[in-house]
Amino acid sequence: MVTRSRLVRVLQSPGRRMGAIGGARLVPCHAISPARCFATSVPRLLSQSQAVQHLARLTSETYPGLARDAKYASLTADDVAYFKNLLGGEQAVIDGTTGGAEDDLKPFNEDWMHKYRGQGRLVLKPGSTEDVSQILKYCNDRKLAVVPQGGNTGLVGGSVPIFDEIIINMSRMNQIHSFDEVSGSLVLDAGCILEVADQYLAERGYIFPLDLGAKGSCHVGGTVATNAGGLRLLRYGSLHGNVLGMEAVLPDGTVMNDLCALRKNNTGYDLKQLFIGGEGTIGIITKLVIQCPQRSAAVNVAYFGLESYEKAQLAFREAKKQLGEILSAFELMDSRTQQIVHKIKGEERPLEGEHPFYCLIETSGSNGDHDYEKLEKFLEDVLTKEIVVDGVVAQGEGQAKALWSWRESITECIGHGGGVYKYDVSIPLAEMYSLVEDVKARMGEAGLIGETEEHPVSAVVGYGHMGDSNLHLNVAVRRYDAKVEEALEPFVYEWIEKRNGSISAEHGLGLAKKKYVQYSRNETVIGLMKQIKKLYDPNGIMNPYKYI
Amino acid sequence: MVTRSRLVRVLQSPGRRMGAIGGARLVPCHAISPARCFATSVPRLLSQSQAVQHLARLTSETYPGLARDAKYASLTADDVAYFKNLLGGEQAVIDGTTGGAEDDLKPFNEDWMHKYRGQGRLVLKPGSTEDVSQILKYCNDRKLAVVPQGGNTGLVGGSVPIFDEIIINMSRMNQIHSFDEVSGSLVLDAGCILEVADQYLAERGYIFPLDLGAKGSCHVGGTVATNAGGLRLLRYGSLHGNVLGMEAVLPDGTVMNDLCALRKNNTGYDLKQLFIGGEGTIGIITKLVIQCPQRSAAVNVAYFGLESYEKAQLAFREAKKQLGEILSAFELMDSRTQQIVHKIKGEERPLEGEHPFYCLIETSGSNGDHDYEKLEKFLEDVLTKEIVVDGVVAQGEGQAKALWSWRESITECIGHGGGVYKYDVSIPLAEMYSLVEDVKARMGEAGLIGETEEHPVSAVVGYGHMGDSNLHLNVAVRRYDAKVEEALEPFVYEWIEKRNGSISAEHGLGLAKKKYVQYSRNETVIGLMKQIKKLYDPNGIMNPYKYI
Repeated sequence: MVTRSRLVRVLQSPGRRMGAIGGARLVPCHAISPARCFATSVPRLLSQSQAVQHLARLTSETYPGLARDAKYASLTADDVAYFKNLLGGEQAVIDGTTGGAEDDLKPFNEDWMHKYRGQGRLVLKPGSTEDVSQILKYCNDRKLAVVPQGGNTGLVGGSVPIFDEIIINMSRMNQIHSFDEVSGSLVLDAGCILEVADQYLAERGYIFPLDLGAKGSCHVGGTVATNAGGLRLLRYGSLHGNVLGMEAVLPDGTVMNDLCALRKNNTGYDLKQLFIGGEGTIGIITKLVIQCPQRSAAVNVAYFGLESYEKAQLAFREAKKQLGEILSAFELMDSRTQQIVHKIKGEERPLEGEHPFYCLIETSGSNGDHDYEKLEKFLEDVLTKEIVVDGVVAQGEGQAKALWSWRESITECIGHGGGVYKYDVSIPLAEMYSLVEDVKARMGEAGLIGETEEHPVSAVVGYGHMGDSNLHLNVAVRRYDAKVEEALEPFVYEWIEKRNGSISAEHGLGLAKKKYVQYSRNETVIGLMKQIKKLYDPNGIMNPYKYI
Repeated sequence: MVTRSRLVRVLQSPGRRMGAIGGARLVPCHAISPARCFATSVPRLLSQSQAVQHLARLTSETYPGLARDAKYASLTADDVAYFKNLLGGEQAVIDGTTGGAEDDLKPFNEDWMHKYRGQGRLVLKPGSTEDVSQILKYCNDRKLAVVPQGGNTGLVGGSVPIFDEIIINMSRMNQIHSFDEVSGSLVLDAGCILEVADQYLAERGYIFPLDLGAKGSCHVGGTVATNAGGLRLLRYGSLHGNVLGMEAVLPDGTVMNDLCALRKNNTGYDLKQLFIGGEGTIGIITKLVIQCPQRSAAVNVAYFGLESYEKAQLAFREAKKQLGEILSAFELMDSRTQQIVHKIKGEERPLEGEHPFYCLIETSGSNGDHDYEKLEKFLEDVLTKEIVVDGVVAQGEGQAKALWSWRESITECIGHGGGVYKYDVSIPLAEMYSLVEDVKARMGEAGLIGETEEHPVSAVVGYGHMGDSNLHLNVAVRRYDAKVEEALEPFVYEWIEKRNGSISAEHGLGLAKKKYVQYSRNETVIGLMKQIKKLYDPNGIMNPYKYI
């Protein structure tokens, strides 16, 4: 994808000034979307063979310690009749309670990674907030457990059932209600697909303040319920700041209408914040008001090599300082990730020579010439100061996409050798990359890592959203080996705990991280969280067995 | 302050192009702070004479419907001895329980507007989180009511007692603990003064993501407890997005330590959000982690006249589009505000001629030349399109400050004629200014407004943070008249309710807005808020008689 001929080399060696390149002026890319990142967070070994299975192992088998809670009622024919009567048409109910319907149920019971598979027998697709309210009220009265489901693109098993929970799929609630073209506030149903909403905004010169790899499938409501981070967080901040209003249905059917479309409203506790990242455990989000920024007319992408992680930190600091308001991404990749991508994809690398670290930066602004000038000056400066060793700047949209594609293909390429232990974590920047080094050293000491077949581990690599202190630690293995897992856990979690890091930066808890939450939250805070859960969902019907 | 000779006129009449001005190139202002705004929100008549009284009327007299709740214990000598023993030195306790100490207690019992005065007899100044915990635990066990107090700069009577609540003043907890110069995360005590924190950041090239008129006195903890909006919200977003971590003490003494310094941490409910805007009713914030952006190297300010509110909306839209990432303020003022400022201050107006509306815009960016070019192009464009009639751009820091000062002096100048009814509200932009027109019409129909002495109302004006849909509606009166109040309320609140606006955009509820919250929040949401209050503060000791 990325070939030398398609890239204009603007930096070649320390001390060589930008001005000496000549003719390297880039045409800014206009109105392209930031590229996507498919970084995943699979905390357990996910082998390639497993990933392509057509039917995942039952979650209840993968987690034998989990048992269906007897406090939940089992679905009866009367229950099903009630829901069919409530929701009307056939397309709103998928009923497998009397057997069969396996193919119809499968996409709702299983996650997209084929890692989690539940045993739900009933899918309900409400068409309105009132439907959701009636469903939850009924389930709460009957003590029927439910799992709210958006686009089912989560990475921690949060959006599929484990046993026979009723699946409440929000895909039918997918209308965009209004958009204020002056203030930028967008009112839409929770079941809207993120890309559809973003496209709607693009036509009006605006952008959704969140972007992520799954945008073509994920629901806006799901991204809010999981407090998704994604690619635009560095620039536009978190959903806690960008969700202006919310309508949600509580487990007892109460509709909490807080659809405020204003940036400022200081009239009481901001309850909607509990539902942002609440992962469907205290209610179902039905509508949202999102504060949307203006779409940038110009996007530029650069890729450069550095000799140490310390230099990468310096580069990040200079980028923040010099690119300021136009910096929209700052990604870190270590050398091994680049070697692996090169080997697997067989394509020429963006830069000649070998550097311990690589960064990809993106700028988005309202004036392409200004942005390019800032970027050029920044690159010249970091080169002169020997912070950066070598670099390229994309010329046009095609090259920008190619550079992003190179960055994004890391995840896929690392998995080619067998399997990968993946951790999606946040660590204060100063120590962020040390986790990779320490894990590598630990694998070395245990004799688990090496170039030859007898070593289960082939590589320990790190990459991620440096701008958000968000690291993807990947341990690539040739085969599953209990010794690797023992060496990794709880070591990795304890390491993160010591640095006040987060064991789940952006993917949430779901089922996968439920038992590790104490590494990022103390007992008091977990206790307070459980108090909230009990307050809103005393019968525990919402998304059971998961979260905290 | 603002004289013609000090302003470079870059726009003079519709159709006259920027390019024709020549030599009007401005020297960008480097590293100046955005100017302050002293906009207040006093919901009741505040006459000038009242404002300068040395001792305000007791709140219990102003609000005769309020009675001290008998469920709260009264302070005993044993209680005072306990606190003195706990906090040690004299400077940590102000004891007026045995009479006297009036002068010492006064600044803690009374707000800065001299509008609210409580009857507290004991001020405690904890020096540590552990102190706060011990104090609250003791008070909760004894059912002693407390009022948490920061810089006491609030506008709604939230930070002073009403009866004999113990004042817990946070001024001794004022340390900055750490700052990460790469990520920009700042860890500090709640009692730090905002300006001190901002100055600390300025020395490191960073900026506090919040600015407001009271910055020289207000505590960071107080701004978070009241979810202050201020001047940088348009650019940096709300505190819900910028507070990364928090330590708070609950009424029973439990310390909730959630001092995460990371931008991404998806491990459970984001409980700290309840304390942002919780106005000290469910706990006391003791420490904070704030995400701080890079400080802008260049700031530019422009002021222009427009022929209608519709044109002001168009100008705002174009500013967002063309200035995009560098737009940091967009303020609206109607013509009457400008006439009043001119009359009271006796200074020349920034623009000749009369225009129905005026806007002040500020840009902040990393490159002064780029910013000025964007601003110049924007102004040329809105002039060519006849969106803007006339305008000036500040040349240098002095002129920028003068323009801000002109904008800020509105509040003070309006009060010169007697008194002012002030409302600080949010309304969707399309209808925002209609509130001013409708109130003016209503006053006219009732025969209450006019140029002569027999009319109690001299002017109905509107101005505010247009970029945040935040209007300051001011009704200037010659004297207090019950008919004016009857014509205003509940009319104004009902008007806002119909537009899904907010009756308190940024100043919170406190005592002043407590009884109006139902105009901006429905019964269900208020019920859910009360549930939270009861959960955290079952004895109701925290900041009683206020909020919801």
